[in-house]
Amino acid sequence: MKKIGKQTFSIKDNVFIRDTYTIVGKKEGQGPLGNKFHMIVEDDLWGEDSWEKSELKFQQTAVEKLMEVNQLKKNQIDLMISGDLLNQITSSSFAARALQLPYIGVYGACSTMALTMGLGSLLIDGGFAENIICVTSSHFCSAERQYRLPLEMGGQRHMSSQWTVTGSAAVWLSKNGSGPRVKNVTFGKITDLGVKDANNMGAAMAPAAYDTLSQHIKDTGIDYDLIVTGDLGTVGKGIVNKMFKEDNNSIEKKYDDCGTIIFDIEKQDVHSGGSGCGCSATVFGAFLYRKLLDGDIKKLLFTSTGALHSPTATLQGESIPGIAHSVGIEI
Amino acid sequence: MKKIGKQTFSIKDNVFIRDTYTIVGKKEGQGPLGNKFHMIVEDDLWGEDSWEKSELKFQQTAVEKLMEVNQLKKNQIDLMISGDLLNQITSSSFAARALQLPYIGVYGACSTMALTMGLGSLLIDGGFAENIICVTSSHFCSAERQYRLPLEMGGQRHMSSQWTVTGSAAVWLSKNGSGPRVKNVTFGKITDLGVKDANNMGAAMAPAAYDTLSQHIKDTGIDYDLIVTGDLGTVGKGIVNKMFKEDNNSIEKKYDDCGTIIFDIEKQDVHSGGSGCGCSATVFGAFLYRKLLDGDIKKLLFTSTGALHSPTATLQGESIPGIAHSVGIEI
Repeated sequence: MKKIGKQTFSIKDNVFIRDTYTIVGKKEGQGPLGNKFHMIVEDDLWGEDSWEKSELKFQQTAVEKLMEVNQLKKNQIDLMISGDLLNQITSSSFAARALQLPYIGVYGACSTMALTMGLGSLLIDGGFAENIICVTSSHFCSAERQYRLPLEMGGQRHMSSQWTVTGSAAVWLSKNGSGPRVKNVTFGKITDLGVKDANNMGAAMAPAAYDTLSQHIKDTGIDYDLIVTGDLGTVGKGIVNKMFKEDNNSIEKKYDDCGTIIFDIEKQDVHSGGSGCGCSATVFGAFLYRKLLDGDIKKLLFTSTGALHSPTATLQGESIPGIAHSVGIEI
Repeated sequence: MKKIGKQTFSIKDNVFIRDTYTIVGKKEGQGPLGNKFHMIVEDDLWGEDSWEKSELKFQQTAVEKLMEVNQLKKNQIDLMISGDLLNQITSSSFAARALQLPYIGVYGACSTMALTMGLGSLLIDGGFAENIICVTSSHFCSAERQYRLPLEMGGQRHMSSQWTVTGSAAVWLSKNGSGPRVKNVTFGKITDLGVKDANNMGAAMAPAAYDTLSQHIKDTGIDYDLIVTGDLGTVGKGIVNKMFKEDNNSIEKKYDDCGTIIFDIEKQDVHSGGSGCGCSATVFGAFLYRKLLDGDIKKLLFTSTGALHSPTATLQGESIPGIAHSVGIEI
């Protein structure tokens, strides 16, 4: 059994992260990582007639560009694993329709990028695939419309709320090649401490992040150079730091969060930071992956975090379940 | 590489389907398989205050009962893979919250049962897990409310429409034991011939079923005793038969559809037949699995079919993408 500790799957053969391709919107392009993304799209609608169609164009284009840059042909790709925030994960399904690749759709809210990469790595290591493309996307406008209030209303945003990243990242996993390798994968359990506030996703996700992170570290015993969560924002990041401190095991010095990396929190009026499936995906694809390639870090624990928030369940008085999936990467 | 042909993954070691547990609603209990289900719940709400909460109780109870009957403990289960029809797959997430198992959420609409079983089989064969629980659910009332019209309106149903099955099935996959084994898995591509009618899901899914079925048969060359699709109903089943006939490769004599098996189409006023994630799941768990155990059939090709219908996309003029995943099982 390729399982270590209670909950972590260990990759025995090589699973390389061969390349990434990231596309973001205008606001993300104006942030601190602006010069690192592969493509920046100035128009929210990207010439389409709805935000949902624009989002699927982000996802489809990210995969097409990744394939084009690497001269990958369709028949070389065994599977596409993808997901997004929209009901029925339409961005993923419609992108998969255009791409005509065998397709596994997953739903993990903002935890999706680590979920797809973890799953893809296991399938390659299991001997089933040579090349898998993992992709996810989110779009500020389609997410606000679906999960909160009509944008046209211009409602004031809570200080604990986060800004859904408009963007998509595609990641090419392969059994061949060189570069950063996926080594250990931990799929999380649902953690729910009772947060019901749809404007405070960071607090809803933080306990799940702590649960999966601490389990992964316990299972593997690896001393990572950098630990990064998906999109907890300043509120959730603070909670994670506090939970580890109370555990007498502070990770603060080597810990950061994609939601606080992608935007300039002070200047870009994003309150608690970035969020959405596209947040950890584009930060990984444009920034963290590059840090591994450049040798800035050698061991990265990449942990996407998801608030499985349902407007229907919230109206029925339910709290917001959180989940986090961890992918340990080394070079 | 454990891949045969273009698109099919071949299981090398043993992946046994150890047991199943099925729970259905009153109407399903009155159908031809009534005496085969493990539990029948007479009350749509099952004592809860919403249909959504009732649905998650179906899913959670199916897993709990499966574990209880088999004296399976939580620490013996490496993963739970699940999905359902509701936005943010809330039935699955909330059931996973209660069950506290490491959790992978997938979205494949009514194709979910084969998707979870296929994925689980690959992960066991890949050496990552000993025991995986696959589960899915649907509920007539929660599905109608979300996808179509308020039930309270009492709108007339189209003759091509299908009746979403109220039910859940949990399936225990294990690397140990005996009995039916998963042998080959084909994950489908999206197929979309342009059907836009949310009341004719059978027509939207049939081309995807044909695509995956014919690819699986081509890849494996296996002569199955029985080929079963998920929930095409009479309309979709007729289209699949026609497509194979035009291909000079009729499968009609050994082909059936769960949507036409679960209800008495004539007497139960279900028009084209049953549908929903719970349809192929409960028919497999209560009926097809038993046929394998009893030796009635030795080789079953189980193919769940999904219409990735989004009310938002339909309002924006989009058609309904279809997908089908095939799991070849032998005893």
